[in-house]
Parts: sequence; structure tokens; C-alpha cells
Amino acid sequence: MNNKRQSMTATEALERIADKSMSGSEYLASCFDRIHQREGKVQAWESLADTQGGLPGGGLLQNIPVGIKDIYDTRDFPTSWGTGYIRSDRSVSDASPVALLKNAGAFVMGKTVSTEFAYFSPGKTRNPYDLDRTPGGSSSGSAAAVADGMVPIALGTQTAGSITRPASYCNVIGFKPTYGLISRAGIRPFSETLDTVGYFARSVNDIALVHAALTYQPHAPLTRLDLAGLKIGVLRVPADGDLDQDVEAALGRTCQRLSAEGAEITSSLSHARELDRLVELQTLVMAFESSRCLADIYFQHVDDMSDKLREILERGFAITLDEYCGALQEAKRLQHSVATLFTEVDLLLSPSSVNVAPLASGISTGDPLYSRAWTLLGLPTISLPIESGHQGMPVGMQFIAPRYRDSVLLKYSHELLSRLETYPGTLDE
Amino acid sequence: MNNKRQSMTATEALERIADKSMSGSEYLASCFDRIHQREGKVQAWESLADTQGGLPGGGLLQNIPVGIKDIYDTRDFPTSWGTGYIRSDRSVSDASPVALLKNAGAFVMGKTVSTEFAYFSPGKTRNPYDLDRTPGGSSSGSAAAVADGMVPIALGTQTAGSITRPASYCNVIGFKPTYGLISRAGIRPFSETLDTVGYFARSVNDIALVHAALTYQPHAPLTRLDLAGLKIGVLRVPADGDLDQDVEAALGRTCQRLSAEGAEITSSLSHARELDRLVELQTLVMAFESSRCLADIYFQHVDDMSDKLREILERGFAITLDEYCGALQEAKRLQHSVATLFTEVDLLLSPSSVNVAPLASGISTGDPLYSRAWTLLGLPTISLPIESGHQGMPVGMQFIAPRYRDSVLLKYSHELLSRLETYPGTLDE
Repeated sequence: MNNKRQSMTATEALERIADKSMSGSEYLASCFDRIHQREGKVQAWESLADTQGGLPGGGLLQNIPVGIKDIYDTRDFPTSWGTGYIRSDRSVSDASPVALLKNAGAFVMGKTVSTEFAYFSPGKTRNPYDLDRTPGGSSSGSAAAVADGMVPIALGTQTAGSITRPASYCNVIGFKPTYGLISRAGIRPFSETLDTVGYFARSVNDIALVHAALTYQPHAPLTRLDLAGLKIGVLRVPADGDLDQDVEAALGRTCQRLSAEGAEITSSLSHARELDRLVELQTLVMAFESSRCLADIYFQHVDDMSDKLREILERGFAITLDEYCGALQEAKRLQHSVATLFTEVDLLLSPSSVNVAPLASGISTGDPLYSRAWTLLGLPTISLPIESGHQGMPVGMQFIAPRYRDSVLLKYSHELLSRLETYPGTLDE
Repeated sequence: MNNKRQSMTATEALERIADKSMSGSEYLASCFDRIHQREGKVQAWESLADTQGGLPGGGLLQNIPVGIKDIYDTRDFPTSWGTGYIRSDRSVSDASPVALLKNAGAFVMGKTVSTEFAYFSPGKTRNPYDLDRTPGGSSSGSAAAVADGMVPIALGTQTAGSITRPASYCNVIGFKPTYGLISRAGIRPFSETLDTVGYFARSVNDIALVHAALTYQPHAPLTRLDLAGLKIGVLRVPADGDLDQDVEAALGRTCQRLSAEGAEITSSLSHARELDRLVELQTLVMAFESSRCLADIYFQHVDDMSDKLREILERGFAITLDEYCGALQEAKRLQHSVATLFTEVDLLLSPSSVNVAPLASGISTGDPLYSRAWTLLGLPTISLPIESGHQGMPVGMQFIAPRYRDSVLLKYSHELLSRLETYPGTLDE
């Protein structure tokens, strides 16, 4: 019974609270129990709430505990941006996504572990499916907390692959909405052209609930969509990037399963090859902007920061304004190629990550390669937990939709997850 | 002598410090003197530095005092965002533009008055050319402090017309670079699609110095450009907006003076009329995004805020996600019309404001009408202090360039200001 509650989705919990087979405070208490039981091993949290009671009100996410990546400002918790050398006390206001979740009735369970300023240098968190492995990053604690059943929902951010990769490694859904739809007010920027709020959950309906709360729109339960005739283009950007064989095999199985459901799979797409360039452009834009966004951190803390962070900031400072503007203009031209590509298919499919979660190394949380292009283009993406690879570890498959087609992507994802068998998984406990 | 120093530009001061005819600390002291003499009337400052000494080092802006709008985070000053109901202590890090100015040697003189959250509700600042009038907003204190000779340079932000309009009303240069070029990290957002860092100064070379510091690029002194054959399109967006007759006359005089310098002036531009729609789109995007950006402020302080602010936030919350996405897509299509328009002309010319500074009313800082379109399009604009209108008050003329042509716009502006007689002006003292 307790075990059942721990892996309950927000949607299931809300149904049970509504039909009075469970109270809101019972549900919250079960999540706190799970955290107390597992946090010593998973280490997903920077700070935790100390209240365990239920909450008044009646919003969309009433009584639902959520985790917030520790780069969001919060009135109730300090923020340390994944660093040991800079820390802010409670903020005068909540970051907008936090305020909007709280307004919908959600209970902020605490702040989850981020890599250093949401870049590459890992925090303490481990992968709940194998405690010797990384959960991915930079939204490490958010993905791990949802994967482990500590909370049904958590917020992260993506600048390169910080939603998609941890979702892939931790066997959860990771949704990155269209660039700009969700306000980033109160989240420390790393790259203003790229930074995007994203969310983790264990059901697409939970993702849709969060999306409704964060866009301040009414929630409509996800309707069913027919997969027959759905045109899916298989696309890896870059085309010749290093991809582990086990993940390539998982991609092949996914295509077969989609075909069996009636979807039309194609891998010969026009203009696809020119998109390779997006990876370099994203890398350049991220380096240039991070150096400007973290200028004060660099000037004050260059001796405190990790080598990885120092390297990208110094690389960024060395990029000229002309190179940067040129990259943005080239990216804009490639947006047109992608628009053309979406006249041929409804969705694109790519592996979420180049591998399953690697062993925790203390210096990396894995490679964001297959997310860079979509982040630069600002397209909505979702990583679905439907596959496994090396040593039975989970790996996600990433579906990509045109700009502003977020709702359609969620509807198809809901249908896909209800039709395709998901990775059964066994937590490392 | 002292009077001369007060109106010195940064470029002039740097020259005199370099040739040792003045020390850095003498210059700083003269700016402090001017503030102490005039602040009781102009009221440009929220907080002031207490150091008066010179500074070590040798950066691009060494010893140059700057004003910072009170919506930028600062390690040395509190921030209150133009409100009486929310205030943050010193921040753990400086906003990026502040860090980059300090890194170039600038001395932060203090925080300048902003309207409430950089929206419409006025602060205490008065127009230095007529103390009964508004300085414009939202960057009220920054424009007034530069106009009054308290500092040579100040930073503001523009979401609708908050650089261009106060520059126009206060007889200073107001430059808004291409959207996205200058990091906004550490500046509280009002509308992420629109918010743009901008700067005030009394010489284009000073603007270029700030631009070099904020983009972390070397500074190249502005070269001369021939005005003969320069194609300038006269364009008011919206075409039939309310424009005071004195400003219309000033626009006419500007066209004649430009013609006399050899520029080719045209007012029949293709696609111009369809740009009118940008005004509505900018208004919609600003309302939608402000409600999300200030969500926590609304939920916590709805009873404290001005009616104007409450109204835009509530209007924003009522806009649907579909309307918002539609507006962004329509704006993107209109960017193509503007690109076409720039194949016909080098620069566009518009009045900076619909009027000269109105009398201070306590409820408004004037109308941003003629800036809305350019802010939504993200184009670089500069307001030049070259005209006057009703009762001899100053009024600016706004020049607009294609995206990323910031340097070209500054070069032409430098040439224009060295060729056209500027408004002589008399401060109200």
C-alpha cells in the first residue's frame, strides 16, 4: 500500500484525494517517508520543507508535492545554484514557475540538486536505477527525485540537454516546451537564447497539468489520438555523432513498435544533413552567452569554480560579437529548413541520449549531443521512458514537434505511452 | 570650470584624465557636487555611493561614474524596483551589465529611480529642463541624471519605450541595441520577448564605449561616414497615431536638415502600412508576459500595487496561450516585411515621442507609442537630441537600423550629431 503510494502519479493521487480514498496529508506524508527512506542513497535534495500537513484550497495541483531545481529563486528556501561558493538567502519573491505552481495548490517539497550553475560539473545525486551511475544533468535532483518516487513532479531547465538527458537516464518523462512559453523570471540565466523551463513526471497527464498551471490556462484532460498514419521522421543531429550500439538498437526497436501501431516511419528527410551545423552553433551561442550571463560570477569566483565552468566562460569571452551575431543569423536560416522538414512529417524521433547513464565520474553527467539542435531551434521536445540498453539500464526516446505545437506533442505522447510498453525498470534499493 | 566639468562627457573626462589636466578623483568629486547641488530638485536617485575617491586600474571606463536603474541587482546597493512595497538587500552578485561596467573600471554612483517595476506608475524624478514636467519613464532617473550632468552615463531598460521616450524628453542620447546583444542576467524581467538593456549619454562616443564594455569587445573610436546618399525612410508606426503638431513640425525640420546634408529622404515605403499591427501585437505580448513574469508579485502584492500595474497584469492573465502564440507568429511574419523595407533604405526615422515632456501628473510618464513596434521587432534604435517643440522643450528624433547593425547605427549617429545643430537647451535651475 505504502509502496503503491510512492509511485503514484499526481493524476492518480488527485483522483484518490477527490474520491476520499486518501487524504492530501496522507499523500504528502508518504512522499516524505519515501524521501527519508532513500535520500541517503539518492541524494536528490539541497533542502527540504519541514511541514508535512495538507494544504487548504482547491487548485489544479492541490496537495501535490513538487521538487524545484536549485537555480530557481524561492521565498521559502535558500538557493546555491549547485555551487559551494555562492549562496543566497530566501528571495523576496518566488521565481514565476514556482509562484504559478503554488497558485495551483502545489506544495514545494524542496530544492533539488543542480550541477554547478546548471552546466556540467556534477552534484551529489545518484541514479536511482543504479546508484553507481550518474542521473544525468544539469537537472539531476529533479529527475532522480521523480524517478525514485519521492515526488510525482519536478521542475528543471534545459540549455543544452538538461531535461532530455536526465529523463533518459532516469526512466522518467522529460518535457521541454517551446522556447519562451514559460516565464524564466527568477531563474538565474546561463544563456538567454537557450534556457528553457522543463518538467519531469511519470505520466503525460501530469506533464499536461503542470503545463496548464505554468501557462495559467485551464487543464483539458488529454484526448486520444489515432497513431495510424502518424508520420514520424527519424533524425539524429548530428547525423554521424557517436551513438552507443545498444541505444541504436533501442531506436530500431522503437521504430518497429511505432510501425506496428500504424505510424509511418521515414528516415530520408530533405535538408536533414544541413542541420548538423546546429550543434556547433548551439555550442558557440551557449559559450558566448554564458560568459556574459555569469560575468560577475567569473570576476568574483574564477578561483572557486570548476575547470569545466571556467573553460566555457573563457571560451565565451574570446568569441567576438560578429561571430556570435553570425551564429544567430545562421540558426535563424536553419529554422526555415526545419519548417520545410515539418511539411513532410508530423513529429521527429531521435534518441534522447547517446548512451545509457554512465558511471558517476565526478566530472561529467553525460553528453547532451542529441538535444543541442532542438534547444537552439526552440522546438518542444519530450523524452519518453520506453527503452533500455546496456546492462538493462533505461534509455529514453525523444519526440520533437514544430514550435507552438506543444499540446499536440503531449497528446501524441499520451497515446504513445498508453500503446507502447514502457521500460519496466527496477530501482536500485 | 566646475560647471564645465559637470557637463563633461565620459570621453572628454577620459581625455583630460589621460593628459593629467584633471584627476579621476577630481572628476568623481565634481559629479558628486552636482548631485548634492541638484538632487533635491531633480530627484533622480534611489541610493548613492558614499565613496568619493578615485579608483585604481586602467579599463575603458576607468573612473567614469555611472547610474544604474533600480531594477538591476547590485552587490553594493539594495533594489526596490520602483516600489514602496518590496525591497531586496544587496544581491549576492551584480547584474551582468553592472559587472561588465565595473570590470571596465566604471564607478557605480548609485541606483536611479525607475517607475514601478519599469511599467507606467511614476517615481519621484522630475525633468531637469522643466521641474514641473515628467522626465519620461520607465528609466526616469537614469535619463534625468545624465541630462542634468550628474553622471555622463546611465543604464536603463526598454520594454515599450522606456529608453527612447525619456531620452527624448530629457535631451540626451538614448540607445537601445539589438534585442539580445546585452545580457539581462540580474535584471528583473517584465517581458522576456521585449526587455532590452539600453544606455543614456551625452555623446555617441560615450554610447560606443558602454557598448564595447557591455559586449566585452575592444572599443574602436567612431570613424566618420559620409551622409551624402544615405537613404532614410520616414516612418511612423502607427501611421495615424496621435502626434502633437510641434513634434510633427520638428520632424519636418529634421528631414530638411538631413536633405541639406545630402541624405535622401523618402516617406513612401512599401509594406509600411502593415506594420501598424505591430503596436497591438507588442501591447498583447507585453501584457501576457508581464502577468507571468510578475506572477508572484501579483499573488503577494495585488493590494499594494498601482491600478495601472494591476490592470496590465489582470489583462495579461486573461489572454489565452493561443492568442499569445498567434501574436508571436504574426510578429515574426512582419519581421520579413521590415527586412524588405530595409532593402529600400539604410535607416528609418521616426519621432522619439508623440509630444514633448508633459506636466508631471503622478499617474503617467507619457506615451511609448512610437517605440512599441521597434521593441517588438528587436531592432537597434537611437534617440538623438536634435529638436525642440512646445514651450521650447526638447524632443528627440529616433533612428532605426536593421538587426545587428548596431555599429553602423552608432557611426551614422556620430556623424549626424557632429553635423546637425543640437537642441541648445537650458536646464531649469
